[in-house]
Amino acid sequence: MNYFDQNDERIKSDILTLAEMINKEAEGFTRRPFTKWYAQSREWLAEEMGKSGLDVQIDAASNLIGRLEGSNKELPPIMIGSHTDTVTGGGRFDGIIGVLAGIEIARQLKEKGITLEHTLLIVDFTAEEPSEFGISTIGSRGMVDNLTDEMLNRTDPNGLKLSEGIKIAGGRPGDISKEALKSGDISLYLELHIEQGPVLEQTNNDLGIVTGIVGIQRYRITVNGQPNHAGTTPMNMRFDALTGAAELILEVEKVAKKSYKEQVVGTVGRLFVEPNGSNVVPGKVVFDVELRSLSTSTIDQMVEQIISKIKDTEINRNLSVSIDKLSQSEPIFVNEDILKGIEEGCEDVGKAILLPSGAGHDANQIARIAPIGMIFVPSKDGKSHCPEEWTEYSQVTKGVCALGNALLYFDKKQSN
Amino acid sequence: MNYFDQNDERIKSDILTLAEMINKEAEGFTRRPFTKWYAQSREWLAEEMGKSGLDVQIDAASNLIGRLEGSNKELPPIMIGSHTDTVTGGGRFDGIIGVLAGIEIARQLKEKGITLEHTLLIVDFTAEEPSEFGISTIGSRGMVDNLTDEMLNRTDPNGLKLSEGIKIAGGRPGDISKEALKSGDISLYLELHIEQGPVLEQTNNDLGIVTGIVGIQRYRITVNGQPNHAGTTPMNMRFDALTGAAELILEVEKVAKKSYKEQVVGTVGRLFVEPNGSNVVPGKVVFDVELRSLSTSTIDQMVEQIISKIKDTEINRNLSVSIDKLSQSEPIFVNEDILKGIEEGCEDVGKAILLPSGAGHDANQIARIAPIGMIFVPSKDGKSHCPEEWTEYSQVTKGVCALGNALLYFDKKQSN
Repeated sequence: MNYFDQNDERIKSDILTLAEMINKEAEGFTRRPFTKWYAQSREWLAEEMGKSGLDVQIDAASNLIGRLEGSNKELPPIMIGSHTDTVTGGGRFDGIIGVLAGIEIARQLKEKGITLEHTLLIVDFTAEEPSEFGISTIGSRGMVDNLTDEMLNRTDPNGLKLSEGIKIAGGRPGDISKEALKSGDISLYLELHIEQGPVLEQTNNDLGIVTGIVGIQRYRITVNGQPNHAGTTPMNMRFDALTGAAELILEVEKVAKKSYKEQVVGTVGRLFVEPNGSNVVPGKVVFDVELRSLSTSTIDQMVEQIISKIKDTEINRNLSVSIDKLSQSEPIFVNEDILKGIEEGCEDVGKAILLPSGAGHDANQIARIAPIGMIFVPSKDGKSHCPEEWTEYSQVTKGVCALGNALLYFDKKQSN
Repeated sequence: MNYFDQNDERIKSDILTLAEMINKEAEGFTRRPFTKWYAQSREWLAEEMGKSGLDVQIDAASNLIGRLEGSNKELPPIMIGSHTDTVTGGGRFDGIIGVLAGIEIARQLKEKGITLEHTLLIVDFTAEEPSEFGISTIGSRGMVDNLTDEMLNRTDPNGLKLSEGIKIAGGRPGDISKEALKSGDISLYLELHIEQGPVLEQTNNDLGIVTGIVGIQRYRITVNGQPNHAGTTPMNMRFDALTGAAELILEVEKVAKKSYKEQVVGTVGRLFVEPNGSNVVPGKVVFDVELRSLSTSTIDQMVEQIISKIKDTEINRNLSVSIDKLSQSEPIFVNEDILKGIEEGCEDVGKAILLPSGAGHDANQIARIAPIGMIFVPSKDGKSHCPEEWTEYSQVTKGVCALGNALLYFDKKQSN
């Protein structure tokens, strides 16, 4: 069953309203957290929440929360959330449609006179995107007590402390830990988001049922050779760091492609050559390898294969190669019951497939204290974080309906 | 026969004297043209030339020239030259030993009472190394009228015009064209230089008889893909510019290695990735390919093979790749007679092999008006243009002897 309407015009108007509340001197659609444009958009969101029958509050971590009391006070609330900050030069959909979907669902619940047993919380999380403090998902981290004092004391390039930024946004940084949510405080977290990739579009699907959020491992590989004269050093007397690196870059691609059934990606996105002169054989190349998968053991196997290739390269090319782990995050899984509920929610709305999320979200943080589920809608040409980011309004409203249906499914199921 | 002595201590003293006349605030051994350190070193060189029986003059292009009149005024002079300017952070040998070799030969001619039939010119060419004016071999260019008005009007980052620099060094920029040497004005040009590569050292030779100076072709390759999200874009939906570039970098190496008998080198020394973020599939990679060989047709064949690989890469990876020629210089050959004379000169001095010069020299310019010959001495670890640049003093004096013997050979031969 589909219990919700596709109000394309209303969601379009909401999206266009927020798309005006931006720093017009920056490229694309730029609404960075802790700025006047962010404050303006939150004021509007709070108003819309109020009109939709939600009680508006700001928590200690400065997240904007609209609350709709449920009929059964015993049940922990169900939370729907996302974010409205953008990257610099970003788009109109990433994060934004997740918050607007929550508000639109509250509107329709009110219009249709549906009462939930669970209390519903609609959250606009503060500063999800990578921030000038070197941290992302600031608000959702704060909500689950994963924002350390060290993080709160960091300053941005203008000298603003993160804790001060949170105060500006209406939070109470000193109370973050005390008021943080713990396991059991929330019965379920749901998020609608754009896919940020090409899969739904290329497979002609309306909706993506997220099976989990990939774990990410990042490594830095340093290839040391010798910076010789490109004219006077014969080919067989070179220790060329860049040809060595080229071999390894192709190996990263090869191992990721080989593991494709496991839905793995492997990327070398960042690379520096030294001394980087057209008449000097490269003496040193440094590059970063990023591996993502729902399966940590698959990533571990890929790393083993890359290390084995590094050893070959060292021997065959007389180079010295080091590999250092920069970071590791663990995958998050959506449990079977939740997948089933979201499938039901999508059933009469549009064509849906299961797929993993290759990007991180506020859901990563909330997963520390509650089961999570996510729905994706298509991204035109797979693009995100750029002005060309686009999802048809009718695709957004299909997402809203699926999310609303899933909410009703869980509200009924979990109260039984 | 070897007519000259290996005065290791004298050449050592000369080298160490010049190694003190440097900008001590810069790294390594730095003596840039048109500076007070350059003026100081030239004053000392002029003095040493005078003591060696040479008449000292500065030509219109500011080259320092010591002249030893020959007995037969009908014969065009034989010229020996090199340069004493260094790159920033350079060494004590590159160029310097070529000028000191000329002075040492003049000293020994005087000491031994040898009179040449040809007039001998010992030249310290102005500003051979790449300069702040974007030009190298300034003095030797000027000597053969290959310094255009446009070049003379260029300014360095301090606003100094090249023509003003030449005046500071004692030249008369307005007279450069008028006084330039033409074909036939010089019977032969000889130059002793460090190899700047590892071949002599690794093959256990004392002396390199240069067969020619390679031609150089430089190309810029631009690989255009799509800058997608590294997490959300599956491996089979990517247009990764860097993996495409990696394939092409390995192809450049492969074609250069395959042509090794032709003594070809192919290098990718300079590369930039866009946007160069560890979580973005590279959308664009730009890199420079440099190919050097004595055989222009071999370079042309390599370019054809690289272009063929580019087409494969475009098709297989759905990328758009462009290749643009940045520059082309033609190879210079040492003629058979001169090779023979230099071989004779090396005969009783040390173990010698034939090899091409992979780097350019003042000889490139003088070759426009006269036959040229060059002798190389070993570079420790193949290093040059750095403070570690090193050639044993006894290896330098072997070079001096071989150069002197060749001079006597040609003086006698060409006057018959």
